[in-house]
Amino acid sequence: MNLTGKMLIGQQAVAGSREASQAIDPATDEPLQPPYAGGTIEQVDQACALAWAAFDSYRETSLEVRAGFLETIAEEIEALGERLIERAMAETGLPRQRIHGERGRTCQQLRTFARTVRAGEWLDVRVDRAQPARQPLPRPDLRQRQVPLGPVAVFGASNFPLAFSVAGGDTASALAAGCPVVVKAHGAHPGTSELVGRAVARAVARCALPEGVFSLLYGSGREVGTALVADPRIRAVGFTGSRSGGLALCQVAQARPEPIPVYAEMSSINPVFLFPAALQARGEALAQGFVASLTQGAGQFCTNPGLVIARQGPALERFVAAAAERVQRSPAQTMLTPGIFQAFEAGVGALAEQPLARTLATGLPGEGPNQGQAHLFATQAQAFLAEPALQAEVFGAASLIVACADAEQVRQVAEHMEGQLTATLHLDEADLDEARALLPTLERKAGRLLVNGWPTGVEVCDAMVHGGPFPATSDPRTTSVGTAAILRFLRPVCYQDFPDALLPAALRHGNPLQLRRLLDGQREARQHA
Amino acid sequence: MNLTGKMLIGQQAVAGSREASQAIDPATDEPLQPPYAGGTIEQVDQACALAWAAFDSYRETSLEVRAGFLETIAEEIEALGERLIERAMAETGLPRQRIHGERGRTCQQLRTFARTVRAGEWLDVRVDRAQPARQPLPRPDLRQRQVPLGPVAVFGASNFPLAFSVAGGDTASALAAGCPVVVKAHGAHPGTSELVGRAVARAVARCALPEGVFSLLYGSGREVGTALVADPRIRAVGFTGSRSGGLALCQVAQARPEPIPVYAEMSSINPVFLFPAALQARGEALAQGFVASLTQGAGQFCTNPGLVIARQGPALERFVAAAAERVQRSPAQTMLTPGIFQAFEAGVGALAEQPLARTLATGLPGEGPNQGQAHLFATQAQAFLAEPALQAEVFGAASLIVACADAEQVRQVAEHMEGQLTATLHLDEADLDEARALLPTLERKAGRLLVNGWPTGVEVCDAMVHGGPFPATSDPRTTSVGTAAILRFLRPVCYQDFPDALLPAALRHGNPLQLRRLLDGQREARQHA
Repeated sequence: MNLTGKMLIGQQAVAGSREASQAIDPATDEPLQPPYAGGTIEQVDQACALAWAAFDSYRETSLEVRAGFLETIAEEIEALGERLIERAMAETGLPRQRIHGERGRTCQQLRTFARTVRAGEWLDVRVDRAQPARQPLPRPDLRQRQVPLGPVAVFGASNFPLAFSVAGGDTASALAAGCPVVVKAHGAHPGTSELVGRAVARAVARCALPEGVFSLLYGSGREVGTALVADPRIRAVGFTGSRSGGLALCQVAQARPEPIPVYAEMSSINPVFLFPAALQARGEALAQGFVASLTQGAGQFCTNPGLVIARQGPALERFVAAAAERVQRSPAQTMLTPGIFQAFEAGVGALAEQPLARTLATGLPGEGPNQGQAHLFATQAQAFLAEPALQAEVFGAASLIVACADAEQVRQVAEHMEGQLTATLHLDEADLDEARALLPTLERKAGRLLVNGWPTGVEVCDAMVHGGPFPATSDPRTTSVGTAAILRFLRPVCYQDFPDALLPAALRHGNPLQLRRLLDGQREARQHA
Repeated sequence: MNLTGKMLIGQQAVAGSREASQAIDPATDEPLQPPYAGGTIEQVDQACALAWAAFDSYRETSLEVRAGFLETIAEEIEALGERLIERAMAETGLPRQRIHGERGRTCQQLRTFARTVRAGEWLDVRVDRAQPARQPLPRPDLRQRQVPLGPVAVFGASNFPLAFSVAGGDTASALAAGCPVVVKAHGAHPGTSELVGRAVARAVARCALPEGVFSLLYGSGREVGTALVADPRIRAVGFTGSRSGGLALCQVAQARPEPIPVYAEMSSINPVFLFPAALQARGEALAQGFVASLTQGAGQFCTNPGLVIARQGPALERFVAAAAERVQRSPAQTMLTPGIFQAFEAGVGALAEQPLARTLATGLPGEGPNQGQAHLFATQAQAFLAEPALQAEVFGAASLIVACADAEQVRQVAEHMEGQLTATLHLDEADLDEARALLPTLERKAGRLLVNGWPTGVEVCDAMVHGGPFPATSDPRTTSVGTAAILRFLRPVCYQDFPDALLPAALRHGNPLQLRRLLDGQREARQHA
């Protein structure tokens, strides 16, 4: 199968006619064929019209059919074989093992949502039966289920060409909820997007679903994305990317006659707190783990540890020396795109010239284009509290160590932080009281708290939260990774005094789907194990 | 206990110093003592500072303490006795029986949320245990719970001086979630607000909670409300009122450096669909039920049936004649405030002058001020589809009957409607197929669908949805009535590899709160019955 450079509007491969974008192999700066011409406003309209036409039918597919569809997508992605791996490597500069792992994660994610769909808990069925004899007024029969919001626009991320892109977490959770999806492909990996998009479209056909369940659009500027979010048939947006990009989409969504939710995962520097006993006992091991997390994947993770907070003193100095030494020995790595490399260079350049911070270490230079060198900076708590620029995310392997005078200053720094995806605590038994005192602050600031680990590595499971207060995301009430992500695309509907013949299956008398309903205030036991 | 005209900033009764608002007895247009001076920006700041100071402590109260607090509020409201009933009657013009019923509903609502808090399902505990031997990477231990968003600003509604006001559904659900509440009292019933506010403050004291858990502010213009929503310590907003008021608060919330969710319940005309067989069989009974629902409480309900849709023909003509006759005999009723009465007069006046609609009937005139007369209008589907003004909410006893040529035109009218709180279907066995065909549209348009009932009357229970797509509310993903309202004020936090000593009780090994957790993908059985 050759790459065509075409979009997918339902089952139709269609060429755009606007300015083309072309992938660049960041390891060589060579363009990769073919060019991907951008979609027109009319093509956005067609994709949205198809999605809308598919919605009422797709949202009432059985749990089994919908779960099977998600599993078929996973099969079709796996069937792409090495072609997918090689194209993704070329478009991102990421090593084979990483892309292999990410493909596995993407397919596991689809299968995990299939399991979630089948379990049906997301329907949140609540039944309050009629009480005809109640005084002073009878109570009607009331039944609630969750229904999907409508077609969802998904914006692929640059840094996970599979797991956060065309068939990534946003798409999987929206499809699981019963929402058709229109993807705006990320311009950095259009070929990978085309391959995966075709796999999804084949799964749509194999499962005999309406074609509008999935479309894939390209666009080099903001025109396609803006038109997509402004389209009245789009009812929610999933986005992973920059703060400015996310906020721009939020503004478009809010300015619509009918505003819609935007789930934008944007900006996080993922503070790591090193408590005194742990720092004293194992500063060298902490430095090793920290630099490994910092430099993994050229630091291009939303959960990259960009901030380290500890109390000043000899133990911190030993940690700093060990971390600096490891950063100095870190080889440069090819970054995802020339644009990301340039933004990283600008970000570390600004920190290097910032009078309130000093450069502790710079990694080894690389050969060839787009070689990101790790950077480690240091500052004092007073400076961090005074200078907002020290909190700006630098996407890549850059981190700032903040030295604090005492536990109270650690708390002040924590309170001063913007919202985060993660906060990490390294502690020993003797640190428990001090850590416990900091927890209320961290719970208010971050979506995931870790003890004695590193924030990179986001498990796809029921308990994961990949989210957090602004600006980590535009909506802290949700997660974009893990099965709870399905809840983003649902709304409740209540059915009052409906005859059984009109009720959806999930709400019918006799509970044919065998759901654990909340029945007259009590949670039902499962009827079959 | 005399009314003081003072606000409550925590436990302190404090006089405002801005322009005073004064309640007016709408039956006489006489002002009611005392005047309520508006709060200053500094007083808003004080209330928010207290709420913030209370948050970390209040949010970690045990389920039992928090449930007991809600029950204590109910007790304290009941202890206000007839004083509360009489003041609410004077401030609203509503009859004794209605206020009595509303007090009962308000206290039942608090007790229902107490039950919900104790059951703990809202914590949505998910546990994925560590898999140290997993390949290629071990899985960490991951545990998720819901935590409250932070202090919530609540804006009381004019039309439910108890159930949607100071200790109404928004306040009860926010307190249940663990959020301190700062109420901006509605200017139409400040005395009722003061009485209830003092009851809440006494419950705070009796339960030995931090005083900032509850404050009550007054303000005659938009200054206090705007400052409240803009305050960085406020993390969510509950509002019931007009579309313009709700949208203004949404704009303030979105313009903050850290935007926050606004749950605004705004505008709904609650379509009623009369299907052919039902209309043929019992047009007279339907007319009787319709007019009773339309005129109940002077039509001042969010769920008032402001739109009736049916196929034209003799059966509809008989319904129209019977409904018009009943409307003509309807006595005028005192409306809640002079402002609401004037807005109602303007709304029905505009419809009366609308060339695309005709007046079918006007109710009896009343004596004295603010006497709202019921109004019934008719139009054709083509006109409804062409003229947006025919969809505008007229708050009060006014309704528009839309005659359609056929089932397809009924569907067009339904698709053309804005988002609604409710949609009602009157049907007989022979109507089932036609009703079924309309359901997908109605599920997309409304939060609650009713068969053979009337939309007024909103049960407080687990399955209720009082919400719906824009402009019914600003956020269709939730409900403002019923126990699911607690979910509005929560966000998930994940704890990775936490030692038991640092975990919150809900997540500890051994499950000390006996919650039905989602454990390694399986829902646990309750350990104690």
